[in-house]
This record gives sequence, structure tokens and C-alpha cells, in this order.
Amino acid sequence: MPSFPHSAVIREVGLRDGLQSIKTTLPTMQKCEWIQRAFAAGQREIEVGSFVPAKLMPQLADTAELLAFAKTLPGLRASVLVPNLKGAERALEADADLMLLPLSASHEHSLANLRKSPDEVVEEMRRIRAARDSSGKKTLIEGGVGTAFGCTIQGEVKPSTVLRLMQALLDAGADQVSLADTVGYADPSSVARLFEQALRLAGDAFCCGHFHDTRGLALANVYAALELGLHRFDASLAGIGGCPHSPGASGNAATEDLAFMLEASGIDTGIDLPALLELRQNVAQWLQGELTHGALWRAGLPKTFHPHAQVA
Amino acid sequence: MPSFPHSAVIREVGLRDGLQSIKTTLPTMQKCEWIQRAFAAGQREIEVGSFVPAKLMPQLADTAELLAFAKTLPGLRASVLVPNLKGAERALEADADLMLLPLSASHEHSLANLRKSPDEVVEEMRRIRAARDSSGKKTLIEGGVGTAFGCTIQGEVKPSTVLRLMQALLDAGADQVSLADTVGYADPSSVARLFEQALRLAGDAFCCGHFHDTRGLALANVYAALELGLHRFDASLAGIGGCPHSPGASGNAATEDLAFMLEASGIDTGIDLPALLELRQNVAQWLQGELTHGALWRAGLPKTFHPHAQVA
Repeated sequence: MPSFPHSAVIREVGLRDGLQSIKTTLPTMQKCEWIQRAFAAGQREIEVGSFVPAKLMPQLADTAELLAFAKTLPGLRASVLVPNLKGAERALEADADLMLLPLSASHEHSLANLRKSPDEVVEEMRRIRAARDSSGKKTLIEGGVGTAFGCTIQGEVKPSTVLRLMQALLDAGADQVSLADTVGYADPSSVARLFEQALRLAGDAFCCGHFHDTRGLALANVYAALELGLHRFDASLAGIGGCPHSPGASGNAATEDLAFMLEASGIDTGIDLPALLELRQNVAQWLQGELTHGALWRAGLPKTFHPHAQVA
Repeated sequence: MPSFPHSAVIREVGLRDGLQSIKTTLPTMQKCEWIQRAFAAGQREIEVGSFVPAKLMPQLADTAELLAFAKTLPGLRASVLVPNLKGAERALEADADLMLLPLSASHEHSLANLRKSPDEVVEEMRRIRAARDSSGKKTLIEGGVGTAFGCTIQGEVKPSTVLRLMQALLDAGADQVSLADTVGYADPSSVARLFEQALRLAGDAFCCGHFHDTRGLALANVYAALELGLHRFDASLAGIGGCPHSPGASGNAATEDLAFMLEASGIDTGIDLPALLELRQNVAQWLQGELTHGALWRAGLPKTFHPHAQVA
């Protein structure tokens, strides 16, 4: 039997990765209700939005308000995505608990999406670290290496490139790093191979796996990572999100299905699954007309399910 | 790194487990096309139907014709489900390559569905083995232990009960045995635990895992079984099927997603994935109005995908 972690953290990214990829814009009030009820259901890490220019992503324009609200919930780690130094300065000003700078390991994807080469993003990390240090704030900095298993534009992305960039982000001042299968190209074997090397390289500073369920393998990929001892994963309630290159494709692993897999496997997530399923039902109603995903919400919890969650 | 098998077999059960659970009855011609094109795409094991009374399951009434057709395809192992001795006699008469007798490890589920206790089904296995031996036919006999991870009626099913019944089926004359998560209660950890014991007990005679994707964990469960060296899995094209207790719940693991996971992981399935995806598209058209499942068909194969299949 593999030696699983005893507990694991699901970081909710539905409010950022999910909502940025769909047409509907949720009102700030509903986003606050989502954050508040996810917290009440036991979630302790939530990415509430992204400090990108509002004209580029109007559906995330209320990120500062959401961060202010999230900071009223004791013990919640509220994080935001920042595309560059300017975003990081807003995150520092708003006292985010964590800011994530994405870097795309695919050179072509990086140029197309961030208009910077991967190494230019590493330089941005250096500037962000300097800004954090001189601000006196405690905001943690995460470097997120995306397209870590390949890319829809460039195709192959070499594991050696991914690992080099991961190390470069740490050298440039990231407190922690994560790996993302942005386009759903990973399979459990490639996850086992790459994540084992990443853990050897970065140890505990390699903190999170981010899997898209584009080809149905997100949970199998999480399982392969769990076997290596990784114990933090991004997920999106109702699996919302997607990819402009694959119409109808699902987004991240569905939070509720992932929480079920972990709890059923005896790994404590701190999540109250019935409460999370109720929230999922409401979020799906708010997003009527959008494709939602996941399986547990249809079938319900097994009669034999014994939750491990002890929600305070 | 776990030591995976180099190759694996996907047994197609969509024509039986899938079609028996949905409203649409496919014409025999379309079922033959399905079998022929699945064979052409590299599938070498197909469960073509079930020898149950036609009035109970009219959508499978053409099983003998399908078997006759399947037997014209060289190298295809054509199997059928048989609920009892009477069904087995029809399977022997029709020269099936393999017949599967299902047994439900849940006492209550067994009484409700088969109107026999599990031990009465073991007795039926004894009679079926005697009938096979005296027939002089080469038809293999598989005992399939269902509700192996719990049951929607009874709830918990003890692993010790599952293993006892598996052994009893072998003792009563089954050539091989398989385990089925009939209602989607398994998780990767429970699969690892039960399957390890089953392999220790039955060795190579434990030949197949059958997972329903009711709660989204079918592929993660397959992965946990693969790590133990199991290398045959049931699956259903487009994930058709379901469970009367969970409206809208999916059926078996989707053949195409499972084949993708295996091939992407470097495990040879012999399957030509583009051909299988084309067939999936047609089957979904034939079944218009029914819920189909799976993710790969929407997103397509990754740009980086290198098939291992060498279809003759």
C-alpha cells in the first residue's frame, strides 16, 4: 500500500479559474456567499480572483472587495492570481494572504498568453519579491508553472524545462511553487514521473498540483500525486471553467468529487461534504446555462460513507 | 514508480451493461456494426449481450444472433452474461467463448435482483460447470462478484464476504473470477486493499475489474488496480448505462477515456483511439436522447499523444 498523507487541502479556484473562463458574471454578493459557505463547509484556502486589468477580465473586477470580505473569515487563506508586478502591488495593498504568479513553461503559450517569455516572468518574480520584502507585508508568493505536461499551441513541453523554470522561480524569490496541467494533457504516469522529480528538487516548497479534467483524468492524476505525498490540490466547485481551445471541455477537477475521493480514501480534508453539495447546487443555479461537471452531485454520497470532517 | 503491466485489455460491455440500462433498443444491424467496428479498432473482448428471458430484457433479445456474428471475427473473444443454468445452456449451444455468471456479494441485493442468495448462486455455478464439462464445449466460465464495495440496499459489504464468495466460485468450477463495483461505491484506496487480497487469493484467476463511474472515480480506481498488476477492465463506450437508483448517473468507465489513460501511460491496449472515437460518435448518434458520458470525445486527443496501438 502506498503511504498516503493523512490530510490534504483543496484550494478552491472556482471563483478565479472557473469564473474567468465562462460567460456569466456573478454579482459580488453571490461570490461572497460562495466564499462564506465554502468556508463554513470547511474550506480554508480560496483563490478569490485575479488582479488583472478590469477591462481585460470584467468578471473578476471585484477581486479587491472579495479579498476584503475573505479576510474577515478567521483562518481562511485568501489568495489571488497576479499576472505581473502591477497586480502584485495591488495584492500587497489589499493584504492578500498569498499571491500566485503564473508562468507558462511552454514558450509559445507564454508569448501568446502573457506576452512574455518564461524567463521574463522569472524576472517579474524577482521584482515581485523585492516589492513584497520592501512592503513589510506577509503575503506569500507562489510561482505556478503551467502547461507543465504540454501545450495546445507548442505541443510537447520538456520535463527538464518545467523543472528548470520551477527552480528559477524559487531562486528568484518565490516562497513556494506549484505545477499545473493547464490543458488536460497529463496522465497518472507522467504525473508520477514529473512530480517525483519536482519533490526531489523543491521538497516542501513544491506545494500544489493543479489538474484540468479536460480528458477525464484529473482525479486519477491527483491520486498519482497523492501517492508521492503531495497533499494540496486546486479544484473548482462543479468543475467549472474550461479552455477556449476545447469548447465544452471541463475545467478543473470538481471540488466535490475530489473531496469525496479523498475522504472516502481516509484522507481528512476538513470538508463537510453534504454542506459542499448544497453550495454546489446553488452555484450551479446561479450559473444556469453554463456547463457544469462532476458526478457526485447526481448520485449523492454512498450509504456507507463515513465522513472524516470535523468542521469547527 | 509502480510496476505497471506493459499491456492491458479493455473488455467492451456497452452492448450488455450499457444497453440493458437505457430505454433505447438498438437494432441488431447497428449492434453488429458496433461489434465489427470495435473489432476493427482493435478491441478483442466484447460482451455482446445476456441470455436472460427476452420478456425481461427485450433490448437484449438478439444476443444469440450477435454471438453468431461476433464469432465470424477472427481472434475476437465474444462473451455473454448468463443469469443461471438455463442461460448457460443457451451460451454453450451458441458456442460463446466465455460466459459470465454474476453473483452479488450483498445478500439483500442478491435476493432483490437474482432472487437467490449468494450461496445459491455458487450452487448454480457448480451446475453450470457440470453442464460445460459434459457439453465438450470450450466456453470459459467467469464468476463475477458484484456489489464488491457496498450496495445501495444493504449498505456495507464486508471484504471478507467478497473474498469468501470469490473463492467459493472458483471452488465450484469457475475458470476465472472478476470483481465489480456495481453501484460506484469504490475509491482507489478500497480498491487497492481489496484487490491486493483478491490477487493473493486467486492469482491469475482474478482476471478483471469492473468499475462504474457513478461518483466520478472509475478511472482513479482502475489506476489503483493497475498498480497491483491487474490488466483487464470492463468499460462501456460513451460510458453508457447507469443505475435505476441514481437517475442520470453514469454507467461503466467510458471505454475511450480508459483507453486514453492506458495508452497515454504507455500501456498497450491494441486500440486505435481515433477509430474508437469515430465509433463513439456514431453510437452516441444512434442513442440520441440518452445520456452519454466521457470527456475525451469533446476535447480530442492531445497534440502530444503518441499511440501505442498496432492494429492488425
